[in-house]
Amino acid sequence: MALSNTFLSALSRLLPPNSVLTDPGECLSYGYDNSRQYSSPDVVVFPIHHQDVVAIVKLCHAENIPLVARGRGTSTTGSAVPIQHGLVLSTEKMDAILKIDPANRIIVTQVGVTNAAIQKAAAEHGFMWAPDPTSSAYCSVGGNLAVNAAGPRAVKYGTTHENTLGLRVVTGDGRDFYTGVYTTKGVVGYDLTRLIIGSEGTLAVITEATLKLTPLTESKNTLQLTYDTIEAGAKAVSAIMGQPITPCALEFMDHSAIELVRSQGIELPALARALLLIDVDGPMNALPEMLEAISLAASIPGLIKIEKAFDKESAQRLWNSRKALSPTLRTIAPRKINEDIVVPVSRLPELITTLEKLSKRYAIPIVNFGHAGNGNIHVNLLFGTPQETAALACLSDVFDLVLSLGGTLSGEHGIGILKKNYIDREIDPAALALMRNIKSQFDPKGILNPGKLFPTA
Amino acid sequence: MALSNTFLSALSRLLPPNSVLTDPGECLSYGYDNSRQYSSPDVVVFPIHHQDVVAIVKLCHAENIPLVARGRGTSTTGSAVPIQHGLVLSTEKMDAILKIDPANRIIVTQVGVTNAAIQKAAAEHGFMWAPDPTSSAYCSVGGNLAVNAAGPRAVKYGTTHENTLGLRVVTGDGRDFYTGVYTTKGVVGYDLTRLIIGSEGTLAVITEATLKLTPLTESKNTLQLTYDTIEAGAKAVSAIMGQPITPCALEFMDHSAIELVRSQGIELPALARALLLIDVDGPMNALPEMLEAISLAASIPGLIKIEKAFDKESAQRLWNSRKALSPTLRTIAPRKINEDIVVPVSRLPELITTLEKLSKRYAIPIVNFGHAGNGNIHVNLLFGTPQETAALACLSDVFDLVLSLGGTLSGEHGIGILKKNYIDREIDPAALALMRNIKSQFDPKGILNPGKLFPTA
Repeated sequence: MALSNTFLSALSRLLPPNSVLTDPGECLSYGYDNSRQYSSPDVVVFPIHHQDVVAIVKLCHAENIPLVARGRGTSTTGSAVPIQHGLVLSTEKMDAILKIDPANRIIVTQVGVTNAAIQKAAAEHGFMWAPDPTSSAYCSVGGNLAVNAAGPRAVKYGTTHENTLGLRVVTGDGRDFYTGVYTTKGVVGYDLTRLIIGSEGTLAVITEATLKLTPLTESKNTLQLTYDTIEAGAKAVSAIMGQPITPCALEFMDHSAIELVRSQGIELPALARALLLIDVDGPMNALPEMLEAISLAASIPGLIKIEKAFDKESAQRLWNSRKALSPTLRTIAPRKINEDIVVPVSRLPELITTLEKLSKRYAIPIVNFGHAGNGNIHVNLLFGTPQETAALACLSDVFDLVLSLGGTLSGEHGIGILKKNYIDREIDPAALALMRNIKSQFDPKGILNPGKLFPTA
Repeated sequence: MALSNTFLSALSRLLPPNSVLTDPGECLSYGYDNSRQYSSPDVVVFPIHHQDVVAIVKLCHAENIPLVARGRGTSTTGSAVPIQHGLVLSTEKMDAILKIDPANRIIVTQVGVTNAAIQKAAAEHGFMWAPDPTSSAYCSVGGNLAVNAAGPRAVKYGTTHENTLGLRVVTGDGRDFYTGVYTTKGVVGYDLTRLIIGSEGTLAVITEATLKLTPLTESKNTLQLTYDTIEAGAKAVSAIMGQPITPCALEFMDHSAIELVRSQGIELPALARALLLIDVDGPMNALPEMLEAISLAASIPGLIKIEKAFDKESAQRLWNSRKALSPTLRTIAPRKINEDIVVPVSRLPELITTLEKLSKRYAIPIVNFGHAGNGNIHVNLLFGTPQETAALACLSDVFDLVLSLGGTLSGEHGIGILKKNYIDREIDPAALALMRNIKSQFDPKGILNPGKLFPTA
């Protein structure tokens, strides 16, 4: 779309020099995110202050210009891609941590700061912020809020949802206010904070957030368990989550993921068809007993070996191989679909064995790994362009399978563009209609991240 | 209001015999809740199944009859009082636990079941449901959901909010659907579950809930700490919450509350002006060290004594005296206003000392106790009818004080009737307007719990 000169000059007047990009070459990288979808923005702006955002939104509202708020572009679903062009509001210069308040276990921050920077600031006072996506080093807090991001620790410490107390926001017509509280409890009015978290920038632009910190635990240890069938591995997850000691990470890898780990030079038992990577944290003198309880629950038929990585370095090596899985997959097939479906933990064995059947039926290699303690599995369909039709048919069956097992289509990536036409398989039509109506209250002209989250009409 | 015979016969046809009350004497007790507010319902109905509720709501919607969903009437804010008369929908016959699923740490239940019944069912499998209001034996899960109820355990395990995965609901025009997920993660569409939790029956009638269970811990111990000034006690709370070991209850009592405990035959140090009651839970062999860490943090100037109630019986006696506080207060003054304000934990000393000043200024005795680990203090203003004006002026100052300290007007009781005209001191006008608009989407005719939560126009 051609933006008027009046609009562009108004933008330039609002912001400091070098805060507005219109050159297509310069705008290019703001049209992508980690979904590899692309659509060119007409203009990219770099606000610094909350009031800059208010002014930008008001201008876009007045002129009916689509506005996509963008963190660091690590979304895997196209949430940050401006599919209707218009304006991309990059939060990368909104990276000030506004307040660190250890006595109340709170950090208040602008949303452009990275997850890793928050972890660093919190750690200096003995705390962490629970959400820990694999992309922690790059992804922004704003992106974490937009998709209710999580990561391995969520199994014990919860997602962005449970670890955010309040927001500062700007609605689609430029109204701005604070939501939530500066306390760990509060029930005054409707919970707009959680309504906006996970709404992928379709309800409001978030400018600041009040984050709830969690004390760092005294010590942590890592277990690596291998099983001779994929079903045994999945059953072990269910057994571990059925007993009282909750690990602070419970990751699963299937045999294809194990092969990838091997290719990185890590030795694993020859017969291993499933691997669990488990972190347990707690008071130092309770840890041996906690590890014992988990090992006991995990000792089911099919267990090959439990290895304890007592030294930090071996644990780190294991974790590095886990974290490298997602990028490595990119190198072994021209294309991949990386889903983040969730099923009830007790249904994991059925999920995994049925996925194997689907893989065979469609001749599409599927690699599975992920946050099994939450039942949240990254299902990776690997294919080349000639197999696209088969891959999409397979994906459709994967979603039906997940819903038939009582699961949900996304645990931490959200819907974006890629899943929007599947959402009505999960959400009741009446609920979906309500969501659309709620969206209209926040964003009457529908300028905020248009074309996302809701099915194409 | 006079209900038409057509309406009443239609109701009777919908429901089994003895499920509709219209006799004013029989309806009487459904016009009260624990706020001691009263307004007579015209009719009280006792649905059993979800579909009964759908039919009742549709009928009320068609005829424009106000509908108040009622659990067990333990609300302290008038949330359950039918101030515009009409129909009270009592959930007391909707008391079936639909599914206990320990492998997934989930209970699915109708909402009329009591909190205590859920705890009992969960405990049989080694779990608890974290919300534990003092009224646990009487209050319903539906009431807990309506006000986002909590209790002492919330400091470590969260409120109803963090421990509910999904709902089954009926909107004000009779649309019904499920919200949320049957998993511990999920980000598909807007979070209607948390929007409805805490909305006090103004958005939808909740019929069923999917509750997230927490493993029972191996062992628990109780500490009782006394301080020679109220300020020292409040500072100790802040010190305890500033270190990594989070207690599973951290309760505070001021000197007036201490007097009440003494009057129940429990001996306490003569000079005690503040008391902390602390539960610590965890793996058995870690507990001594955890207690030590908390004792160390709590050992600040003003500490009189730390007592460890190693036997369960002494611990229970202490807790019984704490739980008896709220009902006992009823006996020492003709009237009381029991607030449940929250401030950031670090501001507790300032809150408590300023409350003492307000008490003196208005000559209104104030008794303070509550869930100090969350900064959630029950501020009880005691007075007789002649002091009502002074009490209300004092209350207004209490709310201003709380907001000036960065706090919130309610931690777990909600707004109801009693606080609705204070809510706009906390919530931004733009946010409040949005909340009203959201309400209209769920309940276009405004029949659900009218006159609650929002300020009188």
